[in-house]
Amino acid sequence: MSTGNKKKIINDPVYGFIKVPFDIIYDLMEHPFFQRLRRIRQLGLTHFVYPGAMHTRFQHAMGAMHLMSSAVAILQSKGHEITKEESIAVHAAILLHDIGHGPFSHVLENTLLEVDHEDISKLMMQELNREFNGQLDMTLSIFNNTYHKKFLHQLVSSQLDMDRLDYLKRDSFFTGVSEGVIGSDRIIKMLNIHNDSLVIESKGIYSIEKFLVARRLMYWQVYLHKTALAAEQMLINILKRARQLVSEGEELFAPPHLLFFMKQKPTIDDFHNQPEIFKNFALLDDDDIMSSIKSWTLHPDAILSNLANDFINRKLFRVSFSNSAFKNSHINEIKKQIAEQMKLDDMADVNYFIITDHISNNAYSKSDDQINILFSDGSIKDIAAASDMLNLSVLGKTVKKHYLCHPKSVHS
Amino acid sequence: MSTGNKKKIINDPVYGFIKVPFDIIYDLMEHPFFQRLRRIRQLGLTHFVYPGAMHTRFQHAMGAMHLMSSAVAILQSKGHEITKEESIAVHAAILLHDIGHGPFSHVLENTLLEVDHEDISKLMMQELNREFNGQLDMTLSIFNNTYHKKFLHQLVSSQLDMDRLDYLKRDSFFTGVSEGVIGSDRIIKMLNIHNDSLVIESKGIYSIEKFLVARRLMYWQVYLHKTALAAEQMLINILKRARQLVSEGEELFAPPHLLFFMKQKPTIDDFHNQPEIFKNFALLDDDDIMSSIKSWTLHPDAILSNLANDFINRKLFRVSFSNSAFKNSHINEIKKQIAEQMKLDDMADVNYFIITDHISNNAYSKSDDQINILFSDGSIKDIAAASDMLNLSVLGKTVKKHYLCHPKSVHS
Amino acid sequence: MSTGNKKKIINDPVYGFIKVPFDIIYDLMEHPFFQRLRRIRQLGLTHFVYPGAMHTRFQHAMGAMHLMSSAVAILQSKGHEITKEESIAVHAAILLHDIGHGPFSHVLENTLLEVDHEDISKLMMQELNREFNGQLDMTLSIFNNTYHKKFLHQLVSSQLDMDRLDYLKRDSFFTGVSEGVIGSDRIIKMLNIHNDSLVIESKGIYSIEKFLVARRLMYWQVYLHKTALAAEQMLINILKRARQLVSEGEELFAPPHLLFFMKQKPTIDDFHNQPEIFKNFALLDDDDIMSSIKSWTLHPDAILSNLANDFINRKLFRVSFSNSAFKNSHINEIKKQIAEQMKLDDMADVNYFIITDHISNNAYSKSDDQINILFSDGSIKDIAAASDMLNLSVLGKTVKKHYLCHPKSVHS
Amino acid sequence: MSTGNKKKIINDPVYGFIKVPFDIIYDLMEHPFFQRLRRIRQLGLTHFVYPGAMHTRFQHAMGAMHLMSSAVAILQSKGHEITKEESIAVHAAILLHDIGHGPFSHVLENTLLEVDHEDISKLMMQELNREFNGQLDMTLSIFNNTYHKKFLHQLVSSQLDMDRLDYLKRDSFFTGVSEGVIGSDRIIKMLNIHNDSLVIESKGIYSIEKFLVARRLMYWQVYLHKTALAAEQMLINILKRARQLVSEGEELFAPPHLLFFMKQKPTIDDFHNQPEIFKNFALLDDDDIMSSIKSWTLHPDAILSNLANDFINRKLFRVSFSNSAFKNSHINEIKKQIAEQMKLDDMADVNYFIITDHISNNAYSKSDDQINILFSDGSIKDIAAASDMLNLSVLGKTVKKHYLCHPKSVHS
Repeated sequence: MSTGNKKKIINDPVYGFIKVPFDIIYDLMEHPFFQRLRRIRQLGLTHFVYPGAMHTRFQHAMGAMHLMSSAVAILQSKGHEITKEESIAVHAAILLHDIGHGPFSHVLENTLLEVDHEDISKLMMQELNREFNGQLDMTLSIFNNTYHKKFLHQLVSSQLDMDRLDYLKRDSFFTGVSEGVIGSDRIIKMLNIHNDSLVIESKGIYSIEKFLVARRLMYWQVYLHKTALAAEQMLINILKRARQLVSEGEELFAPPHLLFFMKQKPTIDDFHNQPEIFKNFALLDDDDIMSSIKSWTLHPDAILSNLANDFINRKLFRVSFSNSAFKNSHINEIKKQIAEQMKLDDMADVNYFIITDHISNNAYSKSDDQINILFSDGSIKDIAAASDMLNLSVLGKTVKKHYLCHPKSVHS
Repeated sequence: MSTGNKKKIINDPVYGFIKVPFDIIYDLMEHPFFQRLRRIRQLGLTHFVYPGAMHTRFQHAMGAMHLMSSAVAILQSKGHEITKEESIAVHAAILLHDIGHGPFSHVLENTLLEVDHEDISKLMMQELNREFNGQLDMTLSIFNNTYHKKFLHQLVSSQLDMDRLDYLKRDSFFTGVSEGVIGSDRIIKMLNIHNDSLVIESKGIYSIEKFLVARRLMYWQVYLHKTALAAEQMLINILKRARQLVSEGEELFAPPHLLFFMKQKPTIDDFHNQPEIFKNFALLDDDDIMSSIKSWTLHPDAILSNLANDFINRKLFRVSFSNSAFKNSHINEIKKQIAEQMKLDDMADVNYFIITDHISNNAYSKSDDQINILFSDGSIKDIAAASDMLNLSVLGKTVKKHYLCHPKSVHS
Repeated sequence: MSTGNKKKIINDPVYGFIKVPFDIIYDLMEHPFFQRLRRIRQLGLTHFVYPGAMHTRFQHAMGAMHLMSSAVAILQSKGHEITKEESIAVHAAILLHDIGHGPFSHVLENTLLEVDHEDISKLMMQELNREFNGQLDMTLSIFNNTYHKKFLHQLVSSQLDMDRLDYLKRDSFFTGVSEGVIGSDRIIKMLNIHNDSLVIESKGIYSIEKFLVARRLMYWQVYLHKTALAAEQMLINILKRARQLVSEGEELFAPPHLLFFMKQKPTIDDFHNQPEIFKNFALLDDDDIMSSIKSWTLHPDAILSNLANDFINRKLFRVSFSNSAFKNSHINEIKKQIAEQMKLDDMADVNYFIITDHISNNAYSKSDDQINILFSDGSIKDIAAASDMLNLSVLGKTVKKHYLCHPKSVHS
Repeated sequence: MSTGNKKKIINDPVYGFIKVPFDIIYDLMEHPFFQRLRRIRQLGLTHFVYPGAMHTRFQHAMGAMHLMSSAVAILQSKGHEITKEESIAVHAAILLHDIGHGPFSHVLENTLLEVDHEDISKLMMQELNREFNGQLDMTLSIFNNTYHKKFLHQLVSSQLDMDRLDYLKRDSFFTGVSEGVIGSDRIIKMLNIHNDSLVIESKGIYSIEKFLVARRLMYWQVYLHKTALAAEQMLINILKRARQLVSEGEELFAPPHLLFFMKQKPTIDDFHNQPEIFKNFALLDDDDIMSSIKSWTLHPDAILSNLANDFINRKLFRVSFSNSAFKNSHINEIKKQIAEQMKLDDMADVNYFIITDHISNNAYSKSDDQINILFSDGSIKDIAAASDMLNLSVLGKTVKKHYLCHPKSVHS
């Protein structure tokens, strides 16, 4: 009668129960690097639109690990060898795949750092591997796609990886956008391996079509939602202004580990060379950003306090979308209004209140990473060829949308 | 074709969609007091046990408001008059019923303040009423139970209020403790009014039995869970130590509005008399507490940094329960071990690492506020008399459990 | 305190509770014509593949009526006038829209009758209107699309009618094909009226895309499933053989009202002219067919008893699909095998064991009945033009598949 | 790449997917005895109250088999030996545990037969064992509780068997009585074995309390529902009348295998001795009963046709409950009314329209079969002792209710 087992079943609103399958997985979950993910929301500022979206990267990592258990079991039941060691390694790889995410990653990665979160993930995994005495060698090899069984890497990172299968389902669940819910269960049941590559059995074509449509729906309805985009742009400008003030020697409240990054903008090389960068980064999370911005609502600098106040109290910028770039004359007209309303003399300051850029959903599909369908005669077709329904040329095409953000008080 | 309407439908994972029924409700939701609830978790530290429990008081307040819409419609359909003005007022009352909650209320109310959150709620409602030019007069009257239709107050605060019906359902949902799910829908459909009091039609007896059992289950399985209790006790001691250091003139990182409360412990009278207390309170939320404690993991004071480190990284105290008080000899033995392990000379410092107290589930039922069942012959019985199943004398009885918390490194 | 109300709330696994909104709706539900739908499964023989698919046309009619209540409320809330009388009429119309369905409609309509179920529906509604003293005049007018507000007819019958929104959701639910689940709630919330036509507000584009994909998925995965198709073809041949035996004067067990239709094949004109046809039809349901076929497993005619046995015990024909028609040579080869195995001399008898025909999903979309999207600038676009994702030319195209069925014992 | 596997995954609305774990389980499911369960509803006439309750004994048997897979895996993971042979046997035992059920068992067992369905189940299993060449020896041994590992029998038949865990969940699901839903998942996770007996680990106490309350709720809200009771009593009287007419030599439409049982009332000994009884029984199902009664709506005997008409069209008797037996004077008064209304001279005929009897929920708990709780110190307590909440003396007590049924046209 084992009682240790029981402790390792975790309640999860999405799947009911999640079983921690190996001791080392439990130990990794206990590590401060992983515990830190409890304080980083999966969807950053999306909760401004969908109040339920408070779920964290901690929950997502566990969910993806849970799906990995199903996928490994299914593939084994279909006669494909996955050794216990490989199973442990691929579970660890999915658990840690997002370990390097900072708070509000997309913002941070362009504003406080000059580093991609995937590079930090690798750095953190290496550090964990040192602490775990090399037990993560195979995990790193799978993560970096140097392991000889390529399909194991695909379970961690590909068009049909456990990452995606969990986050689409989880994000749909917590936002309450029920149409985004995908049949991750059924897709996993249809997984198979052909020439060392993950494939979907042909019975699963409709599930894949549904998955692709749900993914697109989630992009436009959740991930690229206007309001979340506006909040994100305001956050970027708030941090820019704060950094500017710090550079001018102004005093600014912020936890030391956040202030650290306001004074420098490290690259991945800096991370390698200066241990204290890494140490400070490992302390950063959503709470620091939010708590500091709240303090800044009372800061004497009007630009900072205005932006901070509007951000904290959800008086967000208005966003307009356009298929073509906005005209300079139009932008200048808005800038003039802002300058007047905010009483700004310096045109550089006006830029804190207007953003124009573009988004694109190119995250969709890469030509080199297709979803392949396995037919009962053993042949393989790309989903684009196998499905007569989906306009996959459209799906594959990068959709680019220009946007313009500014305070609602300004007429555009 | 009304488009304003559309903006006021909010996705909610629990109910699907929540409709904001009146303009003033929308305006109240936009107010900084209410937006602040986005940053206060409904279940404080429970996510240390149930990682899904990240939902906020903002979500709960909207959920309870949604149930109020159903309850009002059902009662109206049964022929009871609820005017539009009353409907607005009772919706506003439930929306604002928790407006005065601070971060980790139970901790804060004993450690940083000497004030009950209900008193702050009233204060905030009064302030809102001023800002809304008296439009909340009836809301306050219902909330304070001075309105002549008593059943309206009961919808906001009683054994079967919309608060409870939402939080039990919502907490079950997000913790993933699916057995706690209650049939709030069905209970609301069984609501009726008898002599100006809320009653349940007799067809609903089993639903009420189920509700009471689910509530008890949630108490022991979630609300009073050992691990959450341990985390809460650690949080209290961390704040106590921080306050001690501040009082000794030590420098301590914290946002100004949190530091404010480390330097004084205001009472409700202070709130009335000193506007800046109120102002600082309105800025406080979970993020400040969490971000500050994280900074304290590097503080030179060993007691503070030890506690902070263990708290942040979830190395929580062990909790033992007992039906009787723990013996002094036992407690002293543990204190001795702590003093040795932590190298503490001053016995007063040892108390930061050991807590003994008791909990009781007296929140259950008050003799003066029963659930009444309406039979088809017009007679009324208390659920205790109407149900032959539940041992309601047990339910009614206060269950008291003593507990003892200390670091896991210490043997007890 | 109204108690009559309570009786009219019906539990439904799909929506939780269904409220019967008007007295006449309740009275219609009590009528034997409607009660009869309790004994007719929504998906005929699909339960041979999806054992959960036991739900009836009774449940579906109530579900569609429930969605109608939501749709009417939403449209009213957007400022469109729907009078109480119209609301009752449109509720009655959707409740009765399938009233003329016989058991295993598609089979019956080609084998026992020469009548379309819609014509019988109209006949039954007229009969009900007589019994209800003309209270269904407006219902009939809406059903027949002669009522001046055309959008009311569209709620009953169009690409986005309540019929479809319920059956797709319900059939997904009971088959357990969870990917087919549609967001009927959200679609209804996006309904609006433009120029007396139902339209979808532009925010709902993705929901419509999802709906169309889910519908297609349900077609291929459920409605046209091989195994159900095989069962249906066997059922047709069993009834053909039984009719043949009856015509030859053989005695055959069957309830009188079923035997009635084995002796003649009435047209809709016959229905109008001969009241006993109508009377016998109103008694027919799934139970008669199934019970009779079971008796026939012991019939001395080998063809009938073989087919009946295999059908009852789910030894179903094998189905092959092909994009082109099967070759005569191939068919003849199979026929020869059947003749040998079954020891059949008469080639006409062989045809009871082989079927070749085609199916097409032309049910999809009709050029004259599009889904229109309403943009915020008041303009209207067809979904095909509004969506860049869906290959609607494919959706619109009739997909035709040839199939060939025969016993599994025969090699093809 | 195994494709055989895929065919053995069955969609189920309750659990999503059900995997058929062993080849012999698949073969048993294909057998006509098991296919027959597709035509027998799990809840008989309950669909008259809860229209969703159309689910069959076929679905339930598969669901219970699915839970067995979980239970076996959990117990194995806790270190208890269950060999592959034992696993197969216990899966087969649960699959076949209800194989002997006839249509509307409770009615049939008292009206058409004098045999308990469990006895027929054993008979059918023995017959299957013969056909499967003794492969079911261990299955029979477990079913009959002669196998040395007693806990295997308990998984099939005890207070916490997989039968109960499935049917409570499934019946709640399909009736839409969501409060009856039990956490079968969690209960199974808490299963353990102590002294060769199934026990629940102490963490599961609240789940068990919830389970017992849900069970009681289902009893009074579903299983003993007035309306279903009325329908059942009418069905009994219809069959009694039909049998009476047959005995008088009247002609009566019914399928031969049903007519067979109208002419005799076999005992279990008759089953053993007369193979044709068994053969006729194996053909009987709900469809025969329903189809025949519908024919009888046109029978010249007024008593039969009245009852049949009211039954088919759901004009059900009114039921009154009482804690004490109804008085003879009251009953006689009602009989007089019936005689007048129905113009019945013979008082014996009146009895077809009035029934008085009692029901009791003694199905609850037997003193010899308790639910035992395993504490972490290895001690065992009965749930009655372990729970301070439930009034288990009440739960254990047989609740007896008298009832009286008669046509609604009669005043009582």
